[in-house]
Amino acid sequence: MFKDILNNVKNTVPLVHNITNYVTVNDCANILLACGASPIMADDIEDVRDITKICSALNINIGTLNARTLETMLESGKISNELSHPVILDPVGAGASSFRTEAVKKLLQTVRFSVIKGNISEIKTLFNGIGTTKGVDADEADRISEENLDSAVYLAKKLSEQTGAVIAVTGETDIVADTKKAYIIKNGHSMMGKLSGTGCMLSSIIAAYSSANKDNVTEATAAAVCLMGLCGERAYKRLKEREGNLTYKNLIFDEMYNITGDELEDGAKYEIK
Amino acid sequence: MFKDILNNVKNTVPLVHNITNYVTVNDCANILLACGASPIMADDIEDVRDITKICSALNINIGTLNARTLETMLESGKISNELSHPVILDPVGAGASSFRTEAVKKLLQTVRFSVIKGNISEIKTLFNGIGTTKGVDADEADRISEENLDSAVYLAKKLSEQTGAVIAVTGETDIVADTKKAYIIKNGHSMMGKLSGTGCMLSSIIAAYSSANKDNVTEATAAAVCLMGLCGERAYKRLKEREGNLTYKNLIFDEMYNITGDELEDGAKYEIK
Amino acid sequence: MFKDILNNVKNTVPLVHNITNYVTVNDCANILLACGASPIMADDIEDVRDITKICSALNINIGTLNARTLETMLESGKISNELSHPVILDPVGAGASSFRTEAVKKLLQTVRFSVIKGNISEIKTLFNGIGTTKGVDADEADRISEENLDSAVYLAKKLSEQTGAVIAVTGETDIVADTKKAYIIKNGHSMMGKLSGTGCMLSSIIAAYSSANKDNVTEATAAAVCLMGLCGERAYKRLKEREGNLTYKNLIFDEMYNITGDELEDGAKYEIK
Repeated sequence: MFKDILNNVKNTVPLVHNITNYVTVNDCANILLACGASPIMADDIEDVRDITKICSALNINIGTLNARTLETMLESGKISNELSHPVILDPVGAGASSFRTEAVKKLLQTVRFSVIKGNISEIKTLFNGIGTTKGVDADEADRISEENLDSAVYLAKKLSEQTGAVIAVTGETDIVADTKKAYIIKNGHSMMGKLSGTGCMLSSIIAAYSSANKDNVTEATAAAVCLMGLCGERAYKRLKEREGNLTYKNLIFDEMYNITGDELEDGAKYEIK
Repeated sequence: MFKDILNNVKNTVPLVHNITNYVTVNDCANILLACGASPIMADDIEDVRDITKICSALNINIGTLNARTLETMLESGKISNELSHPVILDPVGAGASSFRTEAVKKLLQTVRFSVIKGNISEIKTLFNGIGTTKGVDADEADRISEENLDSAVYLAKKLSEQTGAVIAVTGETDIVADTKKAYIIKNGHSMMGKLSGTGCMLSSIIAAYSSANKDNVTEATAAAVCLMGLCGERAYKRLKEREGNLTYKNLIFDEMYNITGDELEDGAKYEIK
Repeated sequence: MFKDILNNVKNTVPLVHNITNYVTVNDCANILLACGASPIMADDIEDVRDITKICSALNINIGTLNARTLETMLESGKISNELSHPVILDPVGAGASSFRTEAVKKLLQTVRFSVIKGNISEIKTLFNGIGTTKGVDADEADRISEENLDSAVYLAKKLSEQTGAVIAVTGETDIVADTKKAYIIKNGHSMMGKLSGTGCMLSSIIAAYSSANKDNVTEATAAAVCLMGLCGERAYKRLKEREGNLTYKNLIFDEMYNITGDELEDGAKYEIK
């Protein structure tokens, strides 16, 4: 099934509009090309009125957000909603500043997201921020382990209920959940944390995957999360002595560019809860 | 002759001012260094009043354009014109949004360009946008092939007449034309389309090449187009199994950094029409 | 001693806030990860009110500065000063435009810097710009050589006196000086000048090093300068025929990622004046 999901991307070459941070934007563009999709970036509010329309998905990433680009995100999100294009939210640093937390609140109030992808701290911030009284304890360890996996899955499903979005929680173990089921994913390698942009790239890929698999967004998101992690694993195996994080990036792209549907199917490590 | 054009760049190390998108800006900086030139980026309107002056060419690329940077482009273009510095326009996405199309119109009205470089769709948008009544049919296939090559050459020459700029039309076959002659260029490799920024990099290189060969801008532009394509070809030959688009980028830079005037002369594939 | 300085970074993983140019920002993020620190980028004035606080150092780099981000730099610098976080200034292009020169003047008036790092032209601009009448001659060759080394050291020490900052002057020979002593550093390779961002990356590293070695900022800065240069040297040795500046970048990151405290100690080439 992940095989078909991957092939749907390669066969339809979805054009993904990214309003994203300037730190990793080049990686987002090239990873979309590597996975078989196509990127476009535009963040002027006048410009996106047309650009959003010619695309088939929108990826909103709030790293290096500013007051101007926030307005653009809101506008572009609304247009995408009208056109029933999938919209992905990557709430980078939500909780780290009230500006980002408030921005995410405004985005959630204005735009209907298909997928929200963040680490556990960001996801918790969203969960608390949108007014639930069953908020997960703030001082709970911000790392998904065997011990707190169940509560993280519970949180993801609840947030999915509240937002209507598929929720992807990334960490050593990843969770992809809708209201009913959750994929518990064990792909990936710890060295990905030593490379800037692996999370941002994943969000771009999720946008492409959701767009090419519109009736199947939960599975498409799970496939994208497995794919990114699997490329990280395979790249790590090819890394030689004294090679570092940029060489690792090249190898991840090598894998993303060449991986087949069968290889994804074989390498994906997940269970469904 | 292309040999001399290349060597003029290496010998004069032109400083190129780039007002360009934040997606591929780092590639533009490094490709300028690789080809023997030197980059500077500045996009604040106060800042460019001086920066433009210390440079010897200006490269304007409208990808990720916004209202603020458009003003800067206009100002910087005017200053460059006063100083008779070559100004290059890369109208990324002209035609894809009315914001970009209008921006290009304003740029063409305000600034005299030495070279305009775009794909056939962008070039057509410019051609139609500046008020000609002999506009090329909008539904003509947007790809240069043997069948429509003649009409594309005609279009390029006409646009050169209207704008006073050398016109570079990129695609599987590239065209570089002034009012009188056209280079039909067959260098390049299809994998360049899987790498973000090859077009943006080419525009930066054209700026450097035009600046170092001011009396010979058509030939300089043709040389730059052949050079970029040739590096793409040579890099592709060095690409190994399971390598992807970022490794390909490194190899293109390897070639650009090391290619000699003789190698360019030998490898350039073009005819003049 | 440089060994301990390096290990303090790896052991404390300082989170460095960067307000930096969009040309080399990705390199800054990844070099911080490579050297054992952690990056965050934020340039909205509302956003930095919180982001600055959760970091342990601030790196201000004025390449691609604009009116909006200058305000953010001033605000973020003030907050860092209140919290006694080290603040690093990279006055990219000071002297090349009055906008940049004035921006630096404003920054120096408002923010107390721990380290200022620039090439000799930028450092001279700062020295003259802040009102000294003992200004170094403007027409002095802008390159540190045996002949003018003494005057450059004098300049660095004087600027340190005036600003309270450690001064790092980069070039073929680098100088790191406080009011009392100066490190004369001979690490590095000329090919680093063919790679965009080596200076910006160094500033990010200095921020991490200063933060992890707060009581020892002069030595930490000298260690960072030696480290960057040494990685450049070691990477150059691994460069093969027909490889260019992007491959060189990957190799520099390979070295930065893997270099040990002992290797830094052994490879650092400096004398103290």
